[in-house]
Amino acid sequence: MIVLGIDPGTAQTGYGVVAGDSAMRVSLIECGVIRTRPRDRLGARLREIHDGVTELIARHRPNILAVEDVFYAKNVRTTVVLGHARGVILLAGEEAGVEISEFPPAEVKKAVVGTGAATKEQVQFMLTRLLRLRSVPTPSDAADGVATALACLMGARVPQLDRGRPRVRRTEGIA
Amino acid sequence: MIVLGIDPGTAQTGYGVVAGDSAMRVSLIECGVIRTRPRDRLGARLREIHDGVTELIARHRPNILAVEDVFYAKNVRTTVVLGHARGVILLAGEEAGVEISEFPPAEVKKAVVGTGAATKEQVQFMLTRLLRLRSVPTPSDAADGVATALACLMGARVPQLDRGRPRVRRTEGIA
Repeated sequence: MIVLGIDPGTAQTGYGVVAGDSAMRVSLIECGVIRTRPRDRLGARLREIHDGVTELIARHRPNILAVEDVFYAKNVRTTVVLGHARGVILLAGEEAGVEISEFPPAEVKKAVVGTGAATKEQVQFMLTRLLRLRSVPTPSDAADGVATALACLMGARVPQLDRGRPRVRRTEGIA
Repeated sequence: MIVLGIDPGTAQTGYGVVAGDSAMRVSLIECGVIRTRPRDRLGARLREIHDGVTELIARHRPNILAVEDVFYAKNVRTTVVLGHARGVILLAGEEAGVEISEFPPAEVKKAVVGTGAATKEQVQFMLTRLLRLRSVPTPSDAADGVATALACLMGARVPQLDRGRPRVRRTEGIA
C-alpha cells in the first residue's frame, strides 16, 4: 500500500510518499515540498499546489491521500488561507479518484510517537527510525508530510491482502 | 463587461452573472446556486463547486470573477470549510484565465446601498431596483452572488472602451 501524505500550506506544502506492506514494514519513496511564490496571486499559488498534488498522484498512484487537518492557528486569517490550500488538495485527490483520509495533527503525533502531545523533534526522531533514514527529511514541512503518510499507515493497520478495500479510519475532520 | 459574482458556501454557492456598459447600465443575465449534498464527502462537494464555476465561466465568458471574501464567523470550523470552497472557486478562475477580484461583505453592501452596515433587505431592495427586476432573486445566496457582481461593476466605474484593461480595484483580501 502506498500513501501520499500531505501537510498543507500556502507557501510550502510538504509531502511524503510512503509504502507499507502487510508486515507493517514501511519505507520512504519520496518526499519534498511544493513551493509557491509569495508575490504571486492567491489563485496562481493555489493552482501550483493543485497541479503539484495532481502530478504526485499521477506519478506514484497512491492508494490513499492522507491530508493533515488544518491547524487552528490563533490568527483566523492564516487558518482561512490554509483552508483554501486544503480545498484544492482535496479536489486533486477527488479528481484522481483516490481515497482521502484526514488526520488532525495530534492524531499524527499519536500514531507515530504514541502521544498526541509529542514534540516536533520526537516525531522527526521516530520517523527517521521507522523509515531507517540517515537523517531527518528536510525541510520540516516535508517531514510533516512523511509523518502524515506514516500515521495513515500505522493507524490503518495495513489490511490483509485478501480483505479487499483497506479499512482506513475516516477522520473527515470538517464537514 | 460581464461579471460573474460568487458568494461561496459549502452547501450552496450563490452566483450572479451581470452585464454592465460604459453608461453604467447594468442587467442581470443569470443567477442561481450550485447545491451540494450534505451527505457527500467534502472532496466530492468541492469538486461540484469547482466544476460548477468552471462551467459558468465557459458559458458566460466573464471579464471578471468577483468573489465575496470569507465572512469570519464566530465558528472557526465553519470559516475554515468556507475557505476550502473559496479555494476551489479561485482555482477555477485561475485555470480559466479570468481576472479575479475579491470583495469583503461590507464592501459589497457599500457599493450597492452606500453603507457597509446595510441590512440584507436593503441590499436586496437596491439590487432589484438597479437591475429592474420584478422580485428579489431567490434563494438569498443567489441574490448575494448578484450583489457581489454588482458591487464589482459599480466599484469598478466601468472603464471607457478605449482604455483597454478594466481598472478594477483589487482587494486580495487574504494573501
